[in-house]
Amino acid sequence: MISAGTTAAAADDRRYVLSLGCPDSTGIVARISEFLSDLGGWIVEAAYHADPNSGWFFTRQAIRASSVDLSAYELRERFAEVAAELGPETEWTLHDSGTPKRIVLVVSKDGHCLHDLLGRAAQGELPAQITAVIGNHRDLEPVVRAHGIAFHHVPFPKAGTDPEARAAAFAEVRDLVDAHDPHAVVLARFMQVLPAELCEHWAGRAINIHHSFLPSFAGARPYHQAFARGVKLIGATCHYVTADLDAGPIIEQDVTRIDHTYTTRDMVRQGRDIEKLVLARGLRWHLEDRVLVHDHKTVVFS
Amino acid sequence: MISAGTTAAAADDRRYVLSLGCPDSTGIVARISEFLSDLGGWIVEAAYHADPNSGWFFTRQAIRASSVDLSAYELRERFAEVAAELGPETEWTLHDSGTPKRIVLVVSKDGHCLHDLLGRAAQGELPAQITAVIGNHRDLEPVVRAHGIAFHHVPFPKAGTDPEARAAAFAEVRDLVDAHDPHAVVLARFMQVLPAELCEHWAGRAINIHHSFLPSFAGARPYHQAFARGVKLIGATCHYVTADLDAGPIIEQDVTRIDHTYTTRDMVRQGRDIEKLVLARGLRWHLEDRVLVHDHKTVVFS
Amino acid sequence: MISAGTTAAAADDRRYVLSLGCPDSTGIVARISEFLSDLGGWIVEAAYHADPNSGWFFTRQAIRASSVDLSAYELRERFAEVAAELGPETEWTLHDSGTPKRIVLVVSKDGHCLHDLLGRAAQGELPAQITAVIGNHRDLEPVVRAHGIAFHHVPFPKAGTDPEARAAAFAEVRDLVDAHDPHAVVLARFMQVLPAELCEHWAGRAINIHHSFLPSFAGARPYHQAFARGVKLIGATCHYVTADLDAGPIIEQDVTRIDHTYTTRDMVRQGRDIEKLVLARGLRWHLEDRVLVHDHKTVVFS
Amino acid sequence: MISAGTTAAAADDRRYVLSLGCPDSTGIVARISEFLSDLGGWIVEAAYHADPNSGWFFTRQAIRASSVDLSAYELRERFAEVAAELGPETEWTLHDSGTPKRIVLVVSKDGHCLHDLLGRAAQGELPAQITAVIGNHRDLEPVVRAHGIAFHHVPFPKAGTDPEARAAAFAEVRDLVDAHDPHAVVLARFMQVLPAELCEHWAGRAINIHHSFLPSFAGARPYHQAFARGVKLIGATCHYVTADLDAGPIIEQDVTRIDHTYTTRDMVRQGRDIEKLVLARGLRWHLEDRVLVHDHKTVVFS
Repeated sequence: MISAGTTAAAADDRRYVLSLGCPDSTGIVARISEFLSDLGGWIVEAAYHADPNSGWFFTRQAIRASSVDLSAYELRERFAEVAAELGPETEWTLHDSGTPKRIVLVVSKDGHCLHDLLGRAAQGELPAQITAVIGNHRDLEPVVRAHGIAFHHVPFPKAGTDPEARAAAFAEVRDLVDAHDPHAVVLARFMQVLPAELCEHWAGRAINIHHSFLPSFAGARPYHQAFARGVKLIGATCHYVTADLDAGPIIEQDVTRIDHTYTTRDMVRQGRDIEKLVLARGLRWHLEDRVLVHDHKTVVFS
Repeated sequence: MISAGTTAAAADDRRYVLSLGCPDSTGIVARISEFLSDLGGWIVEAAYHADPNSGWFFTRQAIRASSVDLSAYELRERFAEVAAELGPETEWTLHDSGTPKRIVLVVSKDGHCLHDLLGRAAQGELPAQITAVIGNHRDLEPVVRAHGIAFHHVPFPKAGTDPEARAAAFAEVRDLVDAHDPHAVVLARFMQVLPAELCEHWAGRAINIHHSFLPSFAGARPYHQAFARGVKLIGATCHYVTADLDAGPIIEQDVTRIDHTYTTRDMVRQGRDIEKLVLARGLRWHLEDRVLVHDHKTVVFS
Repeated sequence: MISAGTTAAAADDRRYVLSLGCPDSTGIVARISEFLSDLGGWIVEAAYHADPNSGWFFTRQAIRASSVDLSAYELRERFAEVAAELGPETEWTLHDSGTPKRIVLVVSKDGHCLHDLLGRAAQGELPAQITAVIGNHRDLEPVVRAHGIAFHHVPFPKAGTDPEARAAAFAEVRDLVDAHDPHAVVLARFMQVLPAELCEHWAGRAINIHHSFLPSFAGARPYHQAFARGVKLIGATCHYVTADLDAGPIIEQDVTRIDHTYTTRDMVRQGRDIEKLVLARGLRWHLEDRVLVHDHKTVVFS
Repeated sequence: MISAGTTAAAADDRRYVLSLGCPDSTGIVARISEFLSDLGGWIVEAAYHADPNSGWFFTRQAIRASSVDLSAYELRERFAEVAAELGPETEWTLHDSGTPKRIVLVVSKDGHCLHDLLGRAAQGELPAQITAVIGNHRDLEPVVRAHGIAFHHVPFPKAGTDPEARAAAFAEVRDLVDAHDPHAVVLARFMQVLPAELCEHWAGRAINIHHSFLPSFAGARPYHQAFARGVKLIGATCHYVTADLDAGPIIEQDVTRIDHTYTTRDMVRQGRDIEKLVLARGLRWHLEDRVLVHDHKTVVFS
């Protein structure tokens, strides 16, 4: 096993993280901060966003766990009353950073995102543990095992062939993933289109990295599309997976400059660096409860 | 006169903007939000920062003016009591965005930052009026007058010569500036080192744009220094002016890529674009009360 | 008049600039460099590109004019023989940087690109003179005249109404532009779709700035499209105008980061800075013969 | 062993790469291109730079190996005559991309650059083989061995203590490195200052990654220095190692944006991403003979 890492925050860094979205109205900030203040809660991070378009309010607050005399469970019970006052549409989570989250990665042959995330995990940089990797090829199995992580091989028939075998393979992936009840299912260049029901089943937890600056060049072979159009920058997009291909809520995007000398092979090479960065950032924000989804768009309290 | 511009926000966009810094403790967010909530204040923007190093707390909140039944004057009077509770070190301002702020620019011969700011003012992009421009040369007078803005010419003897005449020139600049009681005194490539007493007099209001990524290449001819060192990026820094040359609190910085083909003349040309952007961003944030200074560093709620 | 500027290069900087594209084969570099060497030509810049996809070869070379004992006219006559050897498809230009080029700008109401280019011209930063500005509104006339540049007002009926009057307006614009025989016709946020025959007539000279990172968000209201999709970066694209709307060869693109707090109005404001930069860079490269078009894509020797 | 990788270029991609610097004069391009043309050499990449400051000329040319009927050895022999004509100061190399280069990495405890380079090597992305890793701690040994690469542990006494033991440790590192005769000795966050004689011995081959945007924050704890100054961007610099600490010729630099919320720990985490990218880019350019050093500065034909 390569490295233990420190995936959970150190004790003095332990935080309760509240993320909430609800219809906007006067007094929400006051209500929440009064609640926390009454418990002696020491707020170490607080972010707010009122969206004039949707009329929704969003907040994320991180409280030093040691400042309140309650377990996360008790705090959740208490806060539920506040949330109820904010209306029935209110959505919220309250996470204890001392309880590490779990990630399952789904990969194919291309290893750059996998190598990158394994390296970050080994450095203790991810606020979660990679509990398993599932691949439709065995190419990446050795490096995964070298990191002391389970690897499951699920072969897939080619897209467009043998729909029953494909359905069975997806069912096996689903079961393997669900066995870990992960907070994030990361399609790290998996290259297979998930069936709609899996998108639905993992809604809000399945994260994809697409190798273009969406909405440009959705679908197959985006670098070839970029080459054909003659763009001067290429990019990558980290987004939640929905049944609508490459159209889910965008978490993070970035670009890198290219020029006329770049072949598609050069783009593939240079694009990897952006894919790795964009996925790593988006995944970290997701795991730290910094991403709130509403109306098919994200609020990211990065 | 080139353009009227709309320097004050439209009526429905009018906001009361509160900026505050104080020693951190539990309950500050609750205290302020309760105060605003009791007045029916509709918070459209709220940002918080607790600095674990200095132990200080910072916030900026923008309230829709029409949501509270008070003038800015009255709101200030009421809020003073809250501020007092937060301790004697507390510093705060409360600005009415309906009252346009004033800028005085001080320039020399190089016009790119001046052209840029005049263009932005003409577009109604600056949350302030440029009320006067002072130059130690007459080169830029025509364009200033074309925009319907007063230009004052104050000739300066060369640095290192005739200290009395220089002191008199600085005194004249000081009087011309102070006549407008500006919220920002912008040294838009003025190229003269302000005497310590002027730095002190305009503390927190005098803004400089330095053509390097500080702390690299402080002082004279930064592009020549950059050329000599062979750096691969050049930059610009917008900072508050202090008696310590190019060492004041940094508001904003940015860089642009160069390569071995760049002569210093090329750097000067390309650097201008970064200088303009960095100054424009830093100045806007300053005018919108997004910049709080503590311990020689800035908190920027951009 | 605001400023004379120095639009033509200083005498010792005068260069002959050769740009050439032809089918690739062995020995082209040798043939051209031998030709220049025999004349004693001092090459100060040389760039080459062999495109394996199209099988074309491209080069741009800048020769110190004083190093060869020929006028640009004579050099062109001599070089024509070399070009002929490279095949009938060969396309080339040879420009004397001592002969300033001409730009005509076509604008509407939005002035940021115009202000920016006027400022650059006043600084002597553009390798060309702005000889006229044509606008379908009078809003920007004063600033243009303040710079000592002719402004022509050509009113346009709304798109979709009165096709004859629109055709007449376009004909008038065409005549006004053509009277200057410009090297660049810049649509600086003109907001009117050129008729196909005008695109054809100004092919390779008409340059547009589109306020999105194409191919995303072509057509109308790109910032509104970007807002709806929830992208995390917005951009701008400088391209040659073709009859295919927003699909011409891309000269330059860039992006700027936004987040969930940006309204479309914020995007419009911040996007302007990218539009200005991208247009200014693309225009300069075009005027310096750094942009070669082949197969609907550009080679940019920046 | 994790992955074989393809470190040498595929047969049809095999190139002879010529890099050359010499005093500038008329006719150099013609001389070299005539030489290559006479051999039937198909130039797939060609870059030139004439530096008006130093009066030097630089070029890099990549020729399809299959287009010339000579081995790299023979081509070198022939080209030596051309080089001789260009003067005694001329420096040049001619590398056969079919002969893989060798890298030795020297590390300490911090593994991000190591993980990154191992991942790139496993992907076949580096134009070289990592033949050994030397560490003054054993922390990174397992991951190195998992990739099938030799790891040598050389303990170092603390800086400032036991100079003899330190000298012995450096001597051991030197021998271990030299046994591989590597084209690049990469200090991948080694954190020990090399003695002057080792800098000299590995001149032009020893590459360091420094975690600041030099010349700012040279020396120890650059992120702490950056925090203290309150800069708005942090960076990394890849440079050749010289006896002058952090002052060697810069190969590549880049930066990433931070803000007032960043602790030094946050900077360390985010800075890693820039360190990895900057080192990977600089190392690749070095290995592809794209970096020419003259007068303490680099020409990078990237």
